[in-house]
Amino acid sequence: MGIVVQKYGGSSLSDADAIKRVARRITEQKRAGNDVVVAVSAMGDSTDELLDLAEAVSPLPPARELDMLLTAGERISMALVAMAISDLGYTARSFTGSQAGVITDSVHGKAKIIDVTPGRIQSAIDDGHIVIVAGFQGVSQDTKEITTLGRGGTDTTAVALAAALNADVCEIYTDVDGVFTADPRIVPQAAKLDQVTYEEMLELAASGAKILHLRCVEYARRYNIPIHVRSSFSQLDGTLVTGSINDEGEEQMEAAIISGVAHDRSEAKITVVGVPDKIGEAARIFETLAEVAINIDMIVQNVSATDTGLTDISFTLTQSDGQVAMEALDRLKDEVGYEKLIFDHSIGKVSLVGAGMRSNPGVTAKFFKCLADAGVNIEMISTSEIRISVVCSEEQVDVAVAAAHTAFDLDSSEVEAVVYGGTGR
Amino acid sequence: MGIVVQKYGGSSLSDADAIKRVARRITEQKRAGNDVVVAVSAMGDSTDELLDLAEAVSPLPPARELDMLLTAGERISMALVAMAISDLGYTARSFTGSQAGVITDSVHGKAKIIDVTPGRIQSAIDDGHIVIVAGFQGVSQDTKEITTLGRGGTDTTAVALAAALNADVCEIYTDVDGVFTADPRIVPQAAKLDQVTYEEMLELAASGAKILHLRCVEYARRYNIPIHVRSSFSQLDGTLVTGSINDEGEEQMEAAIISGVAHDRSEAKITVVGVPDKIGEAARIFETLAEVAINIDMIVQNVSATDTGLTDISFTLTQSDGQVAMEALDRLKDEVGYEKLIFDHSIGKVSLVGAGMRSNPGVTAKFFKCLADAGVNIEMISTSEIRISVVCSEEQVDVAVAAAHTAFDLDSSEVEAVVYGGTGR
Repeated sequence: MGIVVQKYGGSSLSDADAIKRVARRITEQKRAGNDVVVAVSAMGDSTDELLDLAEAVSPLPPARELDMLLTAGERISMALVAMAISDLGYTARSFTGSQAGVITDSVHGKAKIIDVTPGRIQSAIDDGHIVIVAGFQGVSQDTKEITTLGRGGTDTTAVALAAALNADVCEIYTDVDGVFTADPRIVPQAAKLDQVTYEEMLELAASGAKILHLRCVEYARRYNIPIHVRSSFSQLDGTLVTGSINDEGEEQMEAAIISGVAHDRSEAKITVVGVPDKIGEAARIFETLAEVAINIDMIVQNVSATDTGLTDISFTLTQSDGQVAMEALDRLKDEVGYEKLIFDHSIGKVSLVGAGMRSNPGVTAKFFKCLADAGVNIEMISTSEIRISVVCSEEQVDVAVAAAHTAFDLDSSEVEAVVYGGTGR
Repeated sequence: MGIVVQKYGGSSLSDADAIKRVARRITEQKRAGNDVVVAVSAMGDSTDELLDLAEAVSPLPPARELDMLLTAGERISMALVAMAISDLGYTARSFTGSQAGVITDSVHGKAKIIDVTPGRIQSAIDDGHIVIVAGFQGVSQDTKEITTLGRGGTDTTAVALAAALNADVCEIYTDVDGVFTADPRIVPQAAKLDQVTYEEMLELAASGAKILHLRCVEYARRYNIPIHVRSSFSQLDGTLVTGSINDEGEEQMEAAIISGVAHDRSEAKITVVGVPDKIGEAARIFETLAEVAINIDMIVQNVSATDTGLTDISFTLTQSDGQVAMEALDRLKDEVGYEKLIFDHSIGKVSLVGAGMRSNPGVTAKFFKCLADAGVNIEMISTSEIRISVVCSEEQVDVAVAAAHTAFDLDSSEVEAVVYGGTGR
């Protein structure tokens, strides 16, 4: 008998019937002999409805009050889930983030979890209750103000609770069956992954796979909490995200070279044309962007043309940061003395992720060749030990994803057994 | 410069526009140089919507979770009011009942306020903020659970905050202009009262006037907090509820004999027919009702008929308690040996309230004569020092109210000046 933490998102809690279905799912786990702690998001679109209300009363609502408002959404869903569980003959206790001991910093709207002090939750578990916790929220350590965690917040709440309670597993329920080798809307042959490592999941998340948020995976890796990503609409096993592929704690020799192909259309590219190739000019540019809190993804600097002494610097960033970045760079024009700025929002990033590429030379060459064969023009390249990403034009993303998926033998559903050495779970 | 506490109900906070209007109203008081603390209810019908959701997931939701759910309503409205205020260039801080230090007992759904520890509110006031507090809710002293206060809860929150903060006045904003001499829907000539005493207001509230809840007036009287009942839709002065009519702290000689006529159609009458007229039989009946937590209002016992040794006992109670009371009495039939039970839900109560009747003999006689002249048949009578109530058939309520209103010279709008000795405010 252990502790299982579950997370249900808004799409799994869209109305009363959905909530009753979730309640049945929760009690199954309890009936199986486990203690259950559940993190819930707000119902369906209710967060958007609250945001609409906020906008209707104030175009620029104070962040503190926006957090106060939005946290009402999880409060509603957690109480309803607790009621539905009680209706099935079990006892449940719901707790706000604050009551659950989710301690954060005081950055409203995107607070970070500093600590979890699960005293009240543990007592409720000890008393035999199923515990429901409001996801996405906490209370600030210094000011005791209500905070929200920002995107991926409820996933992170679930993993943080699992870590604090020393849970056996954190089950993240969603509306798809697990993590796939590529987006099935682009690659119909995409296969569900049975297992994936934290590292691979991190690279997939950072590369545009939307199934788990980066910070949640980072948290799970830090505390070594296995995450089971699965569908709330089926009883099938989903994808297990853990520290290693097999049970012995070591990566298998037969491990897949590539675990998946991710893509991301949310970025844009800025090129600073004609930068004097002097020491410190590039640094000045990126300092300026850091000052306005812009996160840079990939950077490419052309080799300086010997006759002009000028170079071009390109980088990618989130599209929504584009305006702020362009304005900041524009203010820098006289100081740095570059020629002009080019903003391109029609780009896409395609990434190949797999722990196996570490020990497999030739992956990069094979990737580039398959893209070339498919007529994809590569604009930028960036690599990590277990990932290769390329930037291409937005309209070539689908072709690039499909080509890579085929080239690395991910297409057949039978591949799974080979790829993962038939470990299953 | 003092502290003004305001209360806005759901009908004053029905949508974004209404919230903006309330925000303007609040900032006017701040601009006038006062510190402002505001207790808010949930928006419009949102509490009913939450109750519908609860019913959809569980026919008998646990009281703890129902409180957790319902308190989301005030959380939403308080955050929106704070945002709207901020949009007007003032700073506001919203606080839940728990954050505001509203400490209650642990009876979910109808908790009583035990204490208010307004440390955080006072700090926010000291920092120059307008403070918005979620009405209707608190946190239990022993178990630190979220509780709701039940009917009239936000009025009570406002008065409790006013008492804890030593406020100058508690303004209760509603959708009518104040307290009237009778319900204007029944008596078109009914006049707004400029002032009324706590005692009179208590009797009016207990007699069916719905404008202020009994417990809120009791709280105000205990802590001597002036309540100003007024409309959120006009700038007119409303009705001041205080400890005494004039400024010198004593009732004026010219004070009205009668301040108003209240009525109540929410009660029912049960008659226990043919009760053996022995010591203890009546006590047994009311003990039984107390055991099932039924509150009795008026009681009449007929004089025993000498030839039979049997008597009839009639009492009134809230209609919704009728079923439980009848069942409890039915179980008592063999023990007490009465003949039969008669349940009558078609009754109404008409009450004459006024501190002046204390020193005015003949009020009762005049009241009964005007009812007789109007053809109203009196079924039961009950009196206090400043109130006379009669029970009649439900269809005679309107006639009775109008007759009493006329008989005691409340009809003319000029009467006000005479009635209240021209004190005005």
